[in-house]
Amino acid sequence: MRTVDLIQKKRDGYSLNKEEIDFIVSGFTNETIPDYQMSAFLMAVYFQGMDTEETTHLTLAMVNSGDIMDLSGIHGIKVDKHSTGGVGDKTSLIVGPLVAAAGVPVAKMSGRGLGHTGGTIDKLESIEGFNVELTKEEFIDQVNKHKIAIVSQTGNLTPADKKIYALRDVTATVNSIPLIASSIMSKKIASGADAIVLDVKMGSGAFMKTLSDARELAETMVQIGKGLNKKTIAIITDMNQPLGYEVGNANEIKEAIEVLSGQGEAGLVKTCLTVAAYMTMAGGIYTDFNQACTALAGLLRGGGAMAKLKQFIQAQGGRTAVVDNPGLLPRAQNHLELKSDTAGYIQSIAAEPVGIAAMLLGAGRKTKNEPVDYAAGITLKKKVGDEVKHGDVLAVLHSNSTINRQSSQILNNAFAIGPQRPEELPVVYDVIK
Amino acid sequence: MRTVDLIQKKRDGYSLNKEEIDFIVSGFTNETIPDYQMSAFLMAVYFQGMDTEETTHLTLAMVNSGDIMDLSGIHGIKVDKHSTGGVGDKTSLIVGPLVAAAGVPVAKMSGRGLGHTGGTIDKLESIEGFNVELTKEEFIDQVNKHKIAIVSQTGNLTPADKKIYALRDVTATVNSIPLIASSIMSKKIASGADAIVLDVKMGSGAFMKTLSDARELAETMVQIGKGLNKKTIAIITDMNQPLGYEVGNANEIKEAIEVLSGQGEAGLVKTCLTVAAYMTMAGGIYTDFNQACTALAGLLRGGGAMAKLKQFIQAQGGRTAVVDNPGLLPRAQNHLELKSDTAGYIQSIAAEPVGIAAMLLGAGRKTKNEPVDYAAGITLKKKVGDEVKHGDVLAVLHSNSTINRQSSQILNNAFAIGPQRPEELPVVYDVIK
Repeated sequence: MRTVDLIQKKRDGYSLNKEEIDFIVSGFTNETIPDYQMSAFLMAVYFQGMDTEETTHLTLAMVNSGDIMDLSGIHGIKVDKHSTGGVGDKTSLIVGPLVAAAGVPVAKMSGRGLGHTGGTIDKLESIEGFNVELTKEEFIDQVNKHKIAIVSQTGNLTPADKKIYALRDVTATVNSIPLIASSIMSKKIASGADAIVLDVKMGSGAFMKTLSDARELAETMVQIGKGLNKKTIAIITDMNQPLGYEVGNANEIKEAIEVLSGQGEAGLVKTCLTVAAYMTMAGGIYTDFNQACTALAGLLRGGGAMAKLKQFIQAQGGRTAVVDNPGLLPRAQNHLELKSDTAGYIQSIAAEPVGIAAMLLGAGRKTKNEPVDYAAGITLKKKVGDEVKHGDVLAVLHSNSTINRQSSQILNNAFAIGPQRPEELPVVYDVIK
Repeated sequence: MRTVDLIQKKRDGYSLNKEEIDFIVSGFTNETIPDYQMSAFLMAVYFQGMDTEETTHLTLAMVNSGDIMDLSGIHGIKVDKHSTGGVGDKTSLIVGPLVAAAGVPVAKMSGRGLGHTGGTIDKLESIEGFNVELTKEEFIDQVNKHKIAIVSQTGNLTPADKKIYALRDVTATVNSIPLIASSIMSKKIASGADAIVLDVKMGSGAFMKTLSDARELAETMVQIGKGLNKKTIAIITDMNQPLGYEVGNANEIKEAIEVLSGQGEAGLVKTCLTVAAYMTMAGGIYTDFNQACTALAGLLRGGGAMAKLKQFIQAQGGRTAVVDNPGLLPRAQNHLELKSDTAGYIQSIAAEPVGIAAMLLGAGRKTKNEPVDYAAGITLKKKVGDEVKHGDVLAVLHSNSTINRQSSQILNNAFAIGPQRPEELPVVYDVIK
């Protein structure tokens, strides 16, 4: 088998078989196939796509390129959850304790963030004392005992995906549905999940800008899951504005606590309840969506979710007092109110500039290994559809550094205000299973 | 400027401007842009193409990446000629002396071959004593004195093209018309030509399989020439069977001598006369195609072309006696007649397998720096349209090595024989200027 022939085959629109895909993935991973052939292949995939079988073979080849977590020591159906990423996305911090409270074992490995804000791990580390480094035994024990553990990813999982992603990033081949789908699914499968619930973000602030793209990605991932015998459900949710009110790290923890205590912004709550409902259904706890939602809403209102959150934080050494008193979370020295210079209704809040402003305030990393300012971030005071008067506060910027004009300017430009109240945005667009 | 943004721009179908193309070509040449980004860019070009301006900028960027031959010391309009390559293509060996005899200065730098047979330089070296290494001064002096010199390419011409070609070869991005066109034109322009006549081969044995592809390549090259103020004419000629009867090195010299002495296979003669006519017109010797053809045919029949050939061989130290006695050229020890096992008419002779058979006999190189067996090759005894009887000799294989079954088998499979006389193949399909 010659790599150049396989590049040509894909270039000309033919499907590659399992042996051919394994040859490419293993060759690239062990460096017998050079970067320049892989990048040409990836660009050919960008243009010609991959069918379901190819994408499934690609996923499995990446899973098999490294370690596969053995979570068989955990009792019950392990349901993992993944979001394709958005601004203010603290869903994992909410659905984790919530579905654990409902009895689903949550054994989650997560990453540090690169970009707008920190990742789930960074957000958790904004809780004083919270330990994200458990041994595999501690991890499994904690899940069996408390139904939830979230740790920083360890082990050599999907090295092929890491290597391919790094190449895609610099060769304009990120934006390819089969490549995105196989990358996400390979990580989830290598992490040892029995079932996977995917939160596919759609809208101006998401990778998938249109519903048809989001559906295609969702369907591709669900098909991969089917092909590899992992129950997979994809929920398409809105990212035409940031999720909830808070964008950052500690302030996202604070908002997660609010939701877990039965309060919180309606869109965020609905997103979390929907994701959590499908996770509990995949986990065999409930059989019906409405039944699941009712039960989960009860856990939010009745204190069951909050109790689980405290248990989870305590088990990983974090300061549980923050749950009852979020004022104990890191707080920034500097704050700046962004005020409206016009009146009307919020037409849109472009999520990406909000994320960039948060990163500039210190909430995210521009490059790996940079520290994150846990207290930095943005609190939105208005959301799409809200009425504003001249001088109303649109948002508050927080940082331990000096807050410069650039951040507030970027944030200001993210808001579009007009005379008419806009149509309400859906929260959930579709569910693919 | 970021390379990844330029890859994306091309990927998304936009045109790059001069600065952007210069950035990519110079960056890749001086190794600030890595192979893996260049190959992704080339694959994006494969899918999205390039417009005339982009292709012209690319050509000029490759010309400027290295030395540019200064042939201003040569009197007259220097007309270069290029063939896109075919099997049995000895056109340069014929049109060079022919147009020189008509008064056009031929200052040709050529390469050694890699593939089916040797290149023009290898073929010339099959003449005992022929020296292809002249200094620049000797080269210019000889052209001024005898109107012709053909030397092995020296100097650091178009290093960007060499580097890009090497990458295209292993990333399935060879077959892209803007990349082929700019590669050819950059070499011709860096070689110092004032005008360029292109012999674009079309058919089953050529790179361009269809007339529309051949036309597109021809038009692209002519447009590049216009954009860079080099008079450029492209002639689309047939490569649905090998050109002439001889495929090899010394045997191709023998066939060239035949044509230059007023004989030779009709298709080969017509191809050479057409190319030579346009060369003399580009060189300002004749103004009308028919006038040029008549004059050039006169030089073939009247001995002028033969005299020029002798002068040329003598000037470069070769044994001129071969012109009157081609039996003095290298002759192979072993010969094998391939006989027809059926009767009918030759429907087609696939050129590529004929070339491969010739290479296996020793006429070509599989890898650089391999020696060529000048005497090895194939003599076709029948061409498309010829009638054959059972047992008639279709071709003769020549080699100084043992002639194995593989070569004769491949050659045999190249012939298709059927009951009906096929339609006559055109020799020249179109002229683009």
